[in-house]
Amino acid sequence: MIFRRYASTHLPRTIQQLLSAPPIPPNLSQVSITGWVKSVRRQKRVAFAVVNDGSNAAGLQVVFSDPISAQRLSNGTAVRLTGQLADSPGKGQAKELKVEQVQVLGECDPEEYPIQKQALSTEYLRQNVHLRARTDTIASMIRLRDSLQRSIHAFFQDEGFLYTHTPILTSNDCEGAGEAFQIASQPSSQDGQPSNTLETTEKESVKESHFFSRPTYLTVSSQLHLEAMATAMSRVYTLSPCFRAETSQTNRHLSEFWMLEAEWAFTERVEDICSLVEALLKSTWKHSCQERIGLADEASSHLAHIAPQFEQGKSWQRMTYTEAISELSKHQSTTKSPFVFDPKWGKPLQSEHERWLADTLVRGPVFVTDYPTSLKPFYMRANPDGKTVACFDLLIPQIGELVGGSLREERLDVLKENMVRHNLSPELYGWYLDLRKYGGAPHGGFGLGLERLVSWMGAIENIRECIPMPRWAGRMLL
Amino acid sequence: MIFRRYASTHLPRTIQQLLSAPPIPPNLSQVSITGWVKSVRRQKRVAFAVVNDGSNAAGLQVVFSDPISAQRLSNGTAVRLTGQLADSPGKGQAKELKVEQVQVLGECDPEEYPIQKQALSTEYLRQNVHLRARTDTIASMIRLRDSLQRSIHAFFQDEGFLYTHTPILTSNDCEGAGEAFQIASQPSSQDGQPSNTLETTEKESVKESHFFSRPTYLTVSSQLHLEAMATAMSRVYTLSPCFRAETSQTNRHLSEFWMLEAEWAFTERVEDICSLVEALLKSTWKHSCQERIGLADEASSHLAHIAPQFEQGKSWQRMTYTEAISELSKHQSTTKSPFVFDPKWGKPLQSEHERWLADTLVRGPVFVTDYPTSLKPFYMRANPDGKTVACFDLLIPQIGELVGGSLREERLDVLKENMVRHNLSPELYGWYLDLRKYGGAPHGGFGLGLERLVSWMGAIENIRECIPMPRWAGRMLL
Repeated sequence: MIFRRYASTHLPRTIQQLLSAPPIPPNLSQVSITGWVKSVRRQKRVAFAVVNDGSNAAGLQVVFSDPISAQRLSNGTAVRLTGQLADSPGKGQAKELKVEQVQVLGECDPEEYPIQKQALSTEYLRQNVHLRARTDTIASMIRLRDSLQRSIHAFFQDEGFLYTHTPILTSNDCEGAGEAFQIASQPSSQDGQPSNTLETTEKESVKESHFFSRPTYLTVSSQLHLEAMATAMSRVYTLSPCFRAETSQTNRHLSEFWMLEAEWAFTERVEDICSLVEALLKSTWKHSCQERIGLADEASSHLAHIAPQFEQGKSWQRMTYTEAISELSKHQSTTKSPFVFDPKWGKPLQSEHERWLADTLVRGPVFVTDYPTSLKPFYMRANPDGKTVACFDLLIPQIGELVGGSLREERLDVLKENMVRHNLSPELYGWYLDLRKYGGAPHGGFGLGLERLVSWMGAIENIRECIPMPRWAGRMLL
Repeated sequence: MIFRRYASTHLPRTIQQLLSAPPIPPNLSQVSITGWVKSVRRQKRVAFAVVNDGSNAAGLQVVFSDPISAQRLSNGTAVRLTGQLADSPGKGQAKELKVEQVQVLGECDPEEYPIQKQALSTEYLRQNVHLRARTDTIASMIRLRDSLQRSIHAFFQDEGFLYTHTPILTSNDCEGAGEAFQIASQPSSQDGQPSNTLETTEKESVKESHFFSRPTYLTVSSQLHLEAMATAMSRVYTLSPCFRAETSQTNRHLSEFWMLEAEWAFTERVEDICSLVEALLKSTWKHSCQERIGLADEASSHLAHIAPQFEQGKSWQRMTYTEAISELSKHQSTTKSPFVFDPKWGKPLQSEHERWLADTLVRGPVFVTDYPTSLKPFYMRANPDGKTVACFDLLIPQIGELVGGSLREERLDVLKENMVRHNLSPELYGWYLDLRKYGGAPHGGFGLGLERLVSWMGAIENIRECIPMPRWAGRMLL
């Protein structure tokens, strides 16, 4: 099956495909590559260059027997090079291309080119977001992201899940999970100006002017919609953009991000959901750690450090919220109040608490389960104790919450009471009750922020560098 | 590799996994299944039911040796059944479950259940969009959609493409391709009311009130963003939601739909792009025609009819726009003006023209290439004739346009002129020029509406039935 990856018959081979393919018979060793020059080194009788097409981390070393033929090449030039692929006598690469023919496809003025070879600041690259995929770090993130997604799809297919799409435009805001973006009442006309104003003072006119005949938001979570699908297809998941109009400027928040959400019927215990999440993440780790991704040395050594966490035999630690509070309180009272916020049953875990649990107490991923009902959304399943719900957060060292999930309340009467308590309109959520009314089965699921996963498995500090073109409050270039 | 699909070790087997797995040793033949009852047939000494969990089309026949144990079951009931999986003596199924233990997980009042067994109208099911995945037709569409997407991902991986994400929130409207949805200036507060009004009369206040510091639209196409990625990673594609505030109520348009868009560098001929599209669609057809999808009989016979179009040896027809106009004009003049719109060089092809070309003239898919410059967006590459651009539309019988693509203008000076002619702001599109300025390579790509693909390969008439929860002007339930 490995062979499939190099089976392209419709396009010329990429550098990665060339280097990974079975050895080329000598009479077929003339090949063409295309890509961008990363560096050129001219000597008296010979010139070297590295050319990269984005398909692997290192690119390919190319050798010009006549330095003059490399004259027009500089950092950023787009080229097609034809020659013999041969074993490399030099260090650092197995193969090199002995160039016979040079074709410059796109010039690049080395004086003006914004992506210079010296280190460029993160903020500078965010300003040049349209060019930053040309840097090694962003390119490796893009390969990692591709690889993580493929392994996610493979895992869920093995588990009998269907990949599906839920709406982005919606009339509900799921859980009051955060600020939702709203669609302007009328679409803009083609000249880019809104064709009329939103008049909130005149209720009826607003209603009439809605494109969808009701107020429309960008989804903050696909969960409720996925539940409708799970109640028919049993196992479903989606990888979908989500939106939160967060104004907080942290290294963990984006206004637009991608969320993996899975929902399945006939699951009855939070620990089973945790087990599936753990299996997913271990499988994803295993299948995405490929050399071609090419993370920076620093990232690689960090990843080597955390690798033992993903060993199959070792289960990730689990503790209840109540146990977590007890550990936190003990630490607070015995260590001269290291926390700004006092850990207290019934209060949310603060970032400082989450970090301490994962970074210091457990030194690894930890599932915290069974939070107080009052802290969690209306749809989570009530535990028999009457005080907590059957839910979990997966906390990761340095990152904090990576995954959140729960059993969903499938008992019609309990759910109805929850909705009254949360003041949810029966008009908007009647359909959600129907799912329980007609053959509702026990079910549960989880949501995982894809950028946080990239951050974790790529050792990338800020999630703004975990998506090709990030958006946050005040920033949306192109 | 087939085995991987049934390798689930974390969840109980689905019905599909059970039926596809290698034969179970007799001592392990006791199994549990979960799902929803589709039908029950009670006889004097025995009862039969069909249970489906969404993983395949037919579900599984189950047999109760005591009819009383099937008493609480009716259409829609959620159950867990345990028993022996055995060869079925009956017609229509290879295996059946001899039930030993019945567990009702969710009741369903047969009187009230909205999804009755008799045929339900399409409009009724649209009104009950939260329940319609429980019907055979929508469930089979969901399995088909899953299957099509997996085969798309496999194809692109083989061809060396990276799966990437481009922004949904954007400041550009790509091509003036249609009406774009705009984001309201301020996010709604948690009570669902917008927290202030959009004042278009006062320019400065608008600017300040924008969440992203400029007007924000929902993407109508990922193309321009993909071009930025292709100029670094060579081959990229995305499967992303797109939005058009179309008010036309046709069977081919949605306000929210999913688009497959691919973009790659170092391609120089439209015919090569067409070849990749043809290979993609043939591969997708081949890998998604599985019995488990379970389309309706009518659809299956239609698909058998079109199957020869997908044979590998036979290439799809290609003609230039100029040739198409010539054929259309000939038909118009010799057949008593069958078209409402006179076919004329320089005018767009109308739906009636597209249909005639694919349905009647070619009787199959046809690539129409090289349209007049004036009909196409600013970014398409000018042909040497000075009158046409290097583009194509793929027309499909009964559906019309399925794919559109082109070479992109990589020559900086030509592109600049185009932008002036189209009145595009250098402030908004400067980044797009940079892609050419710095090592710009010849490149091209295409876009394909996923729902239209589902419609074609599933023989589903209206694309509102090709997505789980459709949105169109005036309609957005849940």
